[in-house]
Amino acid sequence: MEFRLGFAGFGVVARGLCEILIEKREMLQELYGLEWKVVAISDFRLGSIADGNGIDIESVLETLKNGGRIDNVDAPVKGWDVPTMIKNSNANTLVEVTYTDVKTGEPAMTYIKAALDNGMHVVSTNKGPVVKAIKELRELAEANGVRYGVEGVVLSGTPVLNLVEYTLAGNRISEVKGMVNGTTNYILTKMEEGMGYKEALEKAQELGYAEADPTGDVEGWDALGKVVILTNLIFGKSLRWEDVEREGITKISAEDIKSAQEEGMRWKLIGSAKLLPDGTVKASVKPKKLPLSDPLAGIPGATNALTFVTDELGPVTIIGPGAGKRETGYSLLIELINICRFS
Amino acid sequence: MEFRLGFAGFGVVARGLCEILIEKREMLQELYGLEWKVVAISDFRLGSIADGNGIDIESVLETLKNGGRIDNVDAPVKGWDVPTMIKNSNANTLVEVTYTDVKTGEPAMTYIKAALDNGMHVVSTNKGPVVKAIKELRELAEANGVRYGVEGVVLSGTPVLNLVEYTLAGNRISEVKGMVNGTTNYILTKMEEGMGYKEALEKAQELGYAEADPTGDVEGWDALGKVVILTNLIFGKSLRWEDVEREGITKISAEDIKSAQEEGMRWKLIGSAKLLPDGTVKASVKPKKLPLSDPLAGIPGATNALTFVTDELGPVTIIGPGAGKRETGYSLLIELINICRFS
Repeated sequence: MEFRLGFAGFGVVARGLCEILIEKREMLQELYGLEWKVVAISDFRLGSIADGNGIDIESVLETLKNGGRIDNVDAPVKGWDVPTMIKNSNANTLVEVTYTDVKTGEPAMTYIKAALDNGMHVVSTNKGPVVKAIKELRELAEANGVRYGVEGVVLSGTPVLNLVEYTLAGNRISEVKGMVNGTTNYILTKMEEGMGYKEALEKAQELGYAEADPTGDVEGWDALGKVVILTNLIFGKSLRWEDVEREGITKISAEDIKSAQEEGMRWKLIGSAKLLPDGTVKASVKPKKLPLSDPLAGIPGATNALTFVTDELGPVTIIGPGAGKRETGYSLLIELINICRFS
Repeated sequence: MEFRLGFAGFGVVARGLCEILIEKREMLQELYGLEWKVVAISDFRLGSIADGNGIDIESVLETLKNGGRIDNVDAPVKGWDVPTMIKNSNANTLVEVTYTDVKTGEPAMTYIKAALDNGMHVVSTNKGPVVKAIKELRELAEANGVRYGVEGVVLSGTPVLNLVEYTLAGNRISEVKGMVNGTTNYILTKMEEGMGYKEALEKAQELGYAEADPTGDVEGWDALGKVVILTNLIFGKSLRWEDVEREGITKISAEDIKSAQEEGMRWKLIGSAKLLPDGTVKASVKPKKLPLSDPLAGIPGATNALTFVTDELGPVTIIGPGAGKRETGYSLLIELINICRFS
């Protein structure tokens, strides 16, 4: 199919996707019949342009690289906000990469609903609408005969949702567990190498892995958010944040690390969600001592690793990179490929 | 779609598939629109039956479990050999699970060609035809508008081919490497625990992991075969066995294991295939010392683990079970699901 893409937001991830689309134009056409042009871009800060015949996207990227604005590039239409773009452009697919608000899901949720209602496919990396209303949005997509692709919403460097939906199709998944926070994993790895907690945290902050206020990472809040999203996407549940047992890594001492090493074990911060026989989910984020023979024990630094416990294959583990410009851009691309293949 | 399945061969794997199909009838219908009946079974040893309206497959499984033959079950037609079944039955899909001959690919190759020519989909776990003529068979499938699904041909417990084709779609893969032989991995794990090579091998033989003549495993021949098949399927090449550098684990001493441990390293038998800039592939099977931080270093025993080096995501690793009745049966199911989704 031919995608006429409309971008809501045009930050790093959107540009990562465009780079891939440009570099792989022939490959995508040949392998998946995927053709594309960008017909509209609407960015709150950087300006908006639209051209039903296709925007010169290389010029846009070049202009931005040189510090310019999107609306410095010639185009027949300028100044549309996102709702106007959805209504008036000829885009058949919305790439929704505006900022995330997990409390309200807005303004992304309004954009996504409008696009789906308008019969447009949506691909998005935005956690907000998924946290607020994934069921409703999926139903809306189905009712309109289009797709809402959300691979980039969680562990965006590693296509775990696609793994479940395609590579493991036909399995019943009973448990998901793994390492979903790179910062804490980095700190624990450094502590194994002999650093104390404080020193390891400072090192992580120095390298930009941890923020000045590291609470979100070290107390397990970031991992908790990912567990909630994974649970709701994979098990189709409506788990809330307060349903997840949470314990961070701040109480793990150099002593704990050392005595685990002596037992041939290793501490990791594990997020997990287990489907119980009554259909509910028991979810937690907490430090666990793993034997070195566990595939999750060997994962260092900022790598994602998730184990899916399946009924036909037992445990299947995928290990991949954390987020990044190209990696997250790719998470949008794989959903475009899926639309091509399944629509 | 509704599958009318014809089985060529009805051994353990075929029965594993049937068990899954029976247990998951509703789920498969609901999620993938996959409906099925078995209209013909032709097994060289156990007899052949056919019924265009559907064989009572529960009865067949029960009869076999009690030591009976397939043709003990009532059916309007009996005695068809596989070519006759392909020609005369109303099957629209051939489940080809006859015995493997990697030298000639026969008789499976003749069956598969006849089925594809006849406009039937084929799903198969048979290495022989893939080694002999994967390109030809894929072209034949395409020319007839049907699919030839081969997930079960290599590392059948872990859907690595589906991972590449769906979950990692859009990536260029430049290298595949991993542990593809459980027996050698078991022996090396035991040697780490303090056993000598001979003792570890005997233990593996005792447990049925290694054969009386262990050459195929310990000299790397089994791994080599898998590397050739993976290379040819994933890179679309025509690598031959003699193109692969091969070294087994027989020269690894207790000393080597120990000194690696002291360096924080671990010996693993690694099969790998790397795409070179000139389009050729450099492939090898040999013992490698890995740092413990490598995801492959932590994998114990009979587990499959493969790392794909991709252009968009860097290395992505999948870890899953070795072969088994249900696992290999599942490798056929995932290809049936793909036919449903993509045809």
